[in-house]
Amino acid sequence: MAERYGSIPSTPLLKDELDIVIPTIRNLDFLEMWRPFFQPYHLIIVQDGDPSKTIKVPEGFDYELYNRNDINRILGPKASCISFKDSACRCFGYMVSKKKYIFTIDDDCFVAKDPSGKEINALEQHIKNLLTPSTPFFFNTLYDPFREGADFVRGYPFSLREGATTAVSHGLWLNIPDYDAPTQLVKPHERNTRFVDAVLTVPKGTLFPMCGMNLAFNRELIGPAMYFGLMGDGQPIGRYDDMWAGWCTKVICDHLGLGVKTGLPYIWHSKASNPFVNLKKEYNGIFWQEELIPFFQSAALSKDCTTVQKCYIELSKQVRAKLGKIDPYFNKLADAMVTWIEAWDELNPSGAAAEKPNGPAK
Amino acid sequence: MAERYGSIPSTPLLKDELDIVIPTIRNLDFLEMWRPFFQPYHLIIVQDGDPSKTIKVPEGFDYELYNRNDINRILGPKASCISFKDSACRCFGYMVSKKKYIFTIDDDCFVAKDPSGKEINALEQHIKNLLTPSTPFFFNTLYDPFREGADFVRGYPFSLREGATTAVSHGLWLNIPDYDAPTQLVKPHERNTRFVDAVLTVPKGTLFPMCGMNLAFNRELIGPAMYFGLMGDGQPIGRYDDMWAGWCTKVICDHLGLGVKTGLPYIWHSKASNPFVNLKKEYNGIFWQEELIPFFQSAALSKDCTTVQKCYIELSKQVRAKLGKIDPYFNKLADAMVTWIEAWDELNPSGAAAEKPNGPAK
Repeated sequence: MAERYGSIPSTPLLKDELDIVIPTIRNLDFLEMWRPFFQPYHLIIVQDGDPSKTIKVPEGFDYELYNRNDINRILGPKASCISFKDSACRCFGYMVSKKKYIFTIDDDCFVAKDPSGKEINALEQHIKNLLTPSTPFFFNTLYDPFREGADFVRGYPFSLREGATTAVSHGLWLNIPDYDAPTQLVKPHERNTRFVDAVLTVPKGTLFPMCGMNLAFNRELIGPAMYFGLMGDGQPIGRYDDMWAGWCTKVICDHLGLGVKTGLPYIWHSKASNPFVNLKKEYNGIFWQEELIPFFQSAALSKDCTTVQKCYIELSKQVRAKLGKIDPYFNKLADAMVTWIEAWDELNPSGAAAEKPNGPAK
Repeated sequence: MAERYGSIPSTPLLKDELDIVIPTIRNLDFLEMWRPFFQPYHLIIVQDGDPSKTIKVPEGFDYELYNRNDINRILGPKASCISFKDSACRCFGYMVSKKKYIFTIDDDCFVAKDPSGKEINALEQHIKNLLTPSTPFFFNTLYDPFREGADFVRGYPFSLREGATTAVSHGLWLNIPDYDAPTQLVKPHERNTRFVDAVLTVPKGTLFPMCGMNLAFNRELIGPAMYFGLMGDGQPIGRYDDMWAGWCTKVICDHLGLGVKTGLPYIWHSKASNPFVNLKKEYNGIFWQEELIPFFQSAALSKDCTTVQKCYIELSKQVRAKLGKIDPYFNKLADAMVTWIEAWDELNPSGAAAEKPNGPAK
C-alpha cells in the first residue's frame, strides 16, 4: 500500500508536541513553500550572526525567535557552549523548546516531490518514523517492518520484533547531496535524483553520518545528546556540528537501547554551498574524523549511565581523555559538552533527573 | 543517472566466470522468461526428490543436471551432508561449480519490472553488486556509494572509502514477500509492491535473514561457508537452510573483512508456499532461532582462522559446544558442517589451502 505522501492530515500529527527549529541568517521566505505543512506547528528560529539584523518571517506562522543577545541573556556565561556564526547554533532551539519532539530543517531546503509528482510532507513522515519502533538489533531486508505493506521477513527472531523506541529520524535530500568539500570539488555537477522509497534502522553498533538539514528527534528521549558542538566563529572547525551530534547520539542510543532511523523523508536541497569555503571549514575535521570514528566505535558507557545526561557527561570525559591529545580543541569541546548539559538541565529542570530512557522522561 | 535495468549487455558480464544454480523438482519452464538474461550462462541444476523423474529444461540452455544418484555417486558417504527433499540441496551445485561466481534462483521466481515497466536483469545487477566494494565499516546514508549518481556523504571517513571486497549480493522479491509461516497466516494477502531503488551493505557485526531465492556470491571468496545445512527428509527442521547459511556466512565475512550487500535486484516471486506446511517445517526453527541469533551475534573466530574453511570448521566446533545442548540435531549439523568442508575440499583441491580471503583464492 502506498504511503500518503503530500497529504495534509486534517488534524496535524503531534501539533502541540513538536517544535520546528530553524537556524538562519536571512529572511525566511522558504517557509512559504512549507506553509501547508508547517503552519500548524510552532517554530523556534535561532538567528545566527549579527543580532541587530531583522529576520522577516512570513505572516501566519507561530514562532519565537532568539538572536545572540537572547542566547547570552538566557544562558549567561553558559552561552559559551552555543556556536556563533555557524548553524550549529540551532541546538539552542532544542534546549529552549518545551515540546517532546523536534524537527529541524535548513532554510535552503524546500518541499521535494515523490516520483508520482506529489509534494512530500516531510514532517509527517518524520513523525511516522518517530512514532513507530526501530529495529537496531537485527537487520530486516524489507526495510522498516512498521510501514504499510511491509513486515518482518522469515528468519527474523520473534523476540526482537518489538524493536526499540525510536529516538531519531534522519531524512535525506534530493538535488544537492550532502557531500564534503573534496567530493563537491571532484563532482560539482552531481545531483541526487534517486528516490529510495525506504526507511531503515541504523543497526546497533554502527555509526552513520547524521546530517542536520532534515532531522527529527524525540527530545525527551535523546535531546541532551543533540549538542552541535563548537563550530564557526573562533573555532578551528566547521561543518562537523551535526556529525558530532550524530556520533554522540548514536553511541548513547545504542547504550540506552534506543533506535535511529534514516531514509525517508526527502527534502529538496536547493543550493550547494561553496566548496572552497567548505574545505577551509572542514580541513581539520577531515583529519580528525579518522581518529574520531575509531574513538566513537570503541566508546563504551558504564552501567551507571542511565540517563542521556549521565551518558553525555561520561562521553565528555572520554573526549577529554582520549581526544585531547589530538588537539587542544577537544579539551575545549569537552568543557562545552559539560556546560551544555548544565545549561540544558537549568532550562529543563523537570527532565534533569529522569531515569527512564525508554519512556517519556517527564 | 539511471541504472540500465532490463538492458541486455552485448557481452554478458562474467559469462565464463559465473554459474547459475537452480534446485528443482519440476520442469524448468520458468527459464523461458529468463532466456534473454540467462541463456549465455551455464546452469547447474540440482534435481531434488525422486531421481527417476525427468526434468525438462527448455532448449538452448547450456546445463549440467545432478539428481540424488549423482550426488551419492560423486560424494560417496559424504553425500550425507546434502539435504534431500528440500531446496537446501542447491548447495551441492555450489560445490561442483568450477566458476568464481554463483547466482542461485528458485524456479518460482520470474522477471520483475522496475517502476518504469522495464524488465529487470537481476543477474546483471547482482554482478554489479559483486564487482563493486561494500561498506561494512560505516553506514552511508545515500546507500551504495558505488552506484552511478551516488557517493560517500559528508562525514564518511576517507580511510574507509576503499570499502571491502563484496562476497555476497542478496536480492529481494516483489509480489510474494519472504514471510515465515506465522506471518503468512496472519497476512495471507500481503504483497510486496514497494520497489526500493537501493543497494546497501549490511554493516559489520549485524546479522540479517539471508534468503536463498535470489542470491549471488563470490564462491572463491566465501563458497565454503554457503552450506545450506541439514533440512527436509529425516530432519526436524526446514526453511532455515538459507538462514543458516546466511548467519554463518555473515559471521565469517565479518571476520575476514568481506562485504555483504542487500537490496536490488528484485525478482517476481510468483506463488506463496503453503503456510500450514511451512509452519510444520519452521516450528522448531522458530524456537531455536531465539538461541541461534545470540549465538551467532557473539560468535568470535580466532586469528588462526585465515581461510573460509578454517573459519567454518571453527564455527562447527562452536555449534557443537554451544548449540548441542538445545537439541541433538545441532551435533548432527556440526558433523555435517565438517563433512561439507571435507567434500568441498575434495572437489576443489586447488582452493583447499588458499590463504588469501581478500583476493582470488585460486
